[in-house]
Amino acid sequence: MSEADAEEPELVADVLDGDHRALARTISKIEDRAPGYRDIVSALHAHTGDAEVIGVTGSPGAGKSTLVDKLAKTYRDRGLTVGVIAVDPSSPYTGGAVLGDRIRMASNVGDMDVFFRSMSARGQLGGLSTATADAVKALDAFGKDRIVVETVGAGQNEVDVVRTADSVVVLVQPGSGDDVQMLKAGILEIGDVFVVNKADMDGAATTVSDLREMLHMRDGTTAGAGHHGAGTTADGSDGDEDEGWDPRIVETVATEGEGVAALIDALDAHYDHLRSTGELDRRARTRTAEEIRRLLRSDAADLLEEEIDRHGGMATLVDEVRARETDPYTVVDRLLDPLADCVRERRERDDPAE
Amino acid sequence: MSEADAEEPELVADVLDGDHRALARTISKIEDRAPGYRDIVSALHAHTGDAEVIGVTGSPGAGKSTLVDKLAKTYRDRGLTVGVIAVDPSSPYTGGAVLGDRIRMASNVGDMDVFFRSMSARGQLGGLSTATADAVKALDAFGKDRIVVETVGAGQNEVDVVRTADSVVVLVQPGSGDDVQMLKAGILEIGDVFVVNKADMDGAATTVSDLREMLHMRDGTTAGAGHHGAGTTADGSDGDEDEGWDPRIVETVATEGEGVAALIDALDAHYDHLRSTGELDRRARTRTAEEIRRLLRSDAADLLEEEIDRHGGMATLVDEVRARETDPYTVVDRLLDPLADCVRERRERDDPAE
Repeated sequence: MSEADAEEPELVADVLDGDHRALARTISKIEDRAPGYRDIVSALHAHTGDAEVIGVTGSPGAGKSTLVDKLAKTYRDRGLTVGVIAVDPSSPYTGGAVLGDRIRMASNVGDMDVFFRSMSARGQLGGLSTATADAVKALDAFGKDRIVVETVGAGQNEVDVVRTADSVVVLVQPGSGDDVQMLKAGILEIGDVFVVNKADMDGAATTVSDLREMLHMRDGTTAGAGHHGAGTTADGSDGDEDEGWDPRIVETVATEGEGVAALIDALDAHYDHLRSTGELDRRARTRTAEEIRRLLRSDAADLLEEEIDRHGGMATLVDEVRARETDPYTVVDRLLDPLADCVRERRERDDPAE
Repeated sequence: MSEADAEEPELVADVLDGDHRALARTISKIEDRAPGYRDIVSALHAHTGDAEVIGVTGSPGAGKSTLVDKLAKTYRDRGLTVGVIAVDPSSPYTGGAVLGDRIRMASNVGDMDVFFRSMSARGQLGGLSTATADAVKALDAFGKDRIVVETVGAGQNEVDVVRTADSVVVLVQPGSGDDVQMLKAGILEIGDVFVVNKADMDGAATTVSDLREMLHMRDGTTAGAGHHGAGTTADGSDGDEDEGWDPRIVETVATEGEGVAALIDALDAHYDHLRSTGELDRRARTRTAEEIRRLLRSDAADLLEEEIDRHGGMATLVDEVRARETDPYTVVDRLLDPLADCVRERRERDDPAE
């Protein structure tokens, strides 16, 4: 790690200085979990907190890339800096996505203030949410005003990824039965702004009214349950409630840039709502708690794998259980009791009163 | 725990002696995670390994309960003892299910060799797979020849639950579009025997041929991937391959008992296949490895929650991260480094050569 140690402070300084190549290298390190990436993210964390983060999801073919391009361009025209992370949970490689980047970047040639970057699922999917959150931090610390996290598909993994955002945009394409399926699959619950893209297509009006009805039912029946963050809100806040926000529906024709200004208005209104109600902080707290728990689980799992290896490996443990020499509970106690003992000894040393 | 300690050896002895009330009390303790339940399951483990375990899943309304009743009755007629566990991952309570039991048990009054029992999702879902596996052990140690694990619905949680079985039966109801959805959702992958129930309904022939085609595609395209156990097969075996078994399709009219004998033939053929190919042992090994990992994760999570509390609780940690006094990676290192140090010290003490 000494090699990484030498490079880190310089890389962090360069990112904070606004060096786009350093930013790109940092995100590569995050994606690859290269030595030293944790220290880099740790160092960047202190400089975060100023960006607005927008998640964009929706089924493939709904026109997400085009819409995100136009959204980024419009922000730029208004003098804001923009970073885009396109996340593909279904692909273990970035190869294809990188090519896609180049084509899309061509439309912004010479304007490096729109920073495009794709990330894919290297390793486990839980890791992708962490990597996305870390990449958002890098863009935030860099000084981007708006960060767009765009997903390729619209499944559970995508839901987990866009939950790293302050506002979630869900794209719906008129007349595709898939969209109803997609909306059922938990996507409806997380949208703050819904975009019916290709609004010049047949069936757009029907899609808008269907959507309105589904949202009405959602707010009637789930009443605050299901918004951003199912479960782990043991940070003391109830991160799931978002009182008083009526999800907006915006019609766009992204290829023509139509409706993009209205989308930005809706996003601004949502952000104002988040800020004025304290919901911005509540969501951020929930996300931070989830982030800590996710890292804890992942690091603890590594530690446990080492313990399994030290006890002869999983195959040996399974042999013993299958031979009825021992059983799973006894095996687990054997693996964890030493750790629990350590913790107890340490506690007694630290707090002798207890 | 002393109270539990006093009761445990007796309870275990009574279960091994064939006392149905002791069996029911044991499963209640497992479901409630009552003090001492781990020791009870540990003690029972040595007496397991003789039962054939059959998982039954399928969408609600497909006729699972009726089929399982007839299956149990037919096994009894053949002189075999039977235990049935009906698992409802969607319900956090057993109340309703218990009533259901009573109604169903009435059809087997006086025949306690068919032992019915329902279990529901108390606490987290991961815990339900563990509780089901533990209840199966209790029935196995008791001496039941056949154990049927029946689920209420047909989603991912149900898939996890029936994977505790040696053979998986998937029920399909003719003419319901839901079934195609259900089959897509991973249920197709895990079925060893498919039952088209209500085979006297319109559309049954179509359902059978649709099913045959889907299974053909499954075996063509996934070629052994997806069978029983996605992933954690670090026990050295490749638990996912099941060479040479062509899933059978059986048509039944459960209400009339029609086709139940054919279902038993199919299950016997599958079990023979499992035994002759060594697949029975491979699956059991994969399950044992998953069981150990699941318990490890769960116990480690408890330990980590204690550490979080000792560091002031999650709300305090989140405050510090939000105030940029620290960051998630540093927090996690602070929580885990003491444990990692303990482990390292212990290793050096145990293996000074390293």
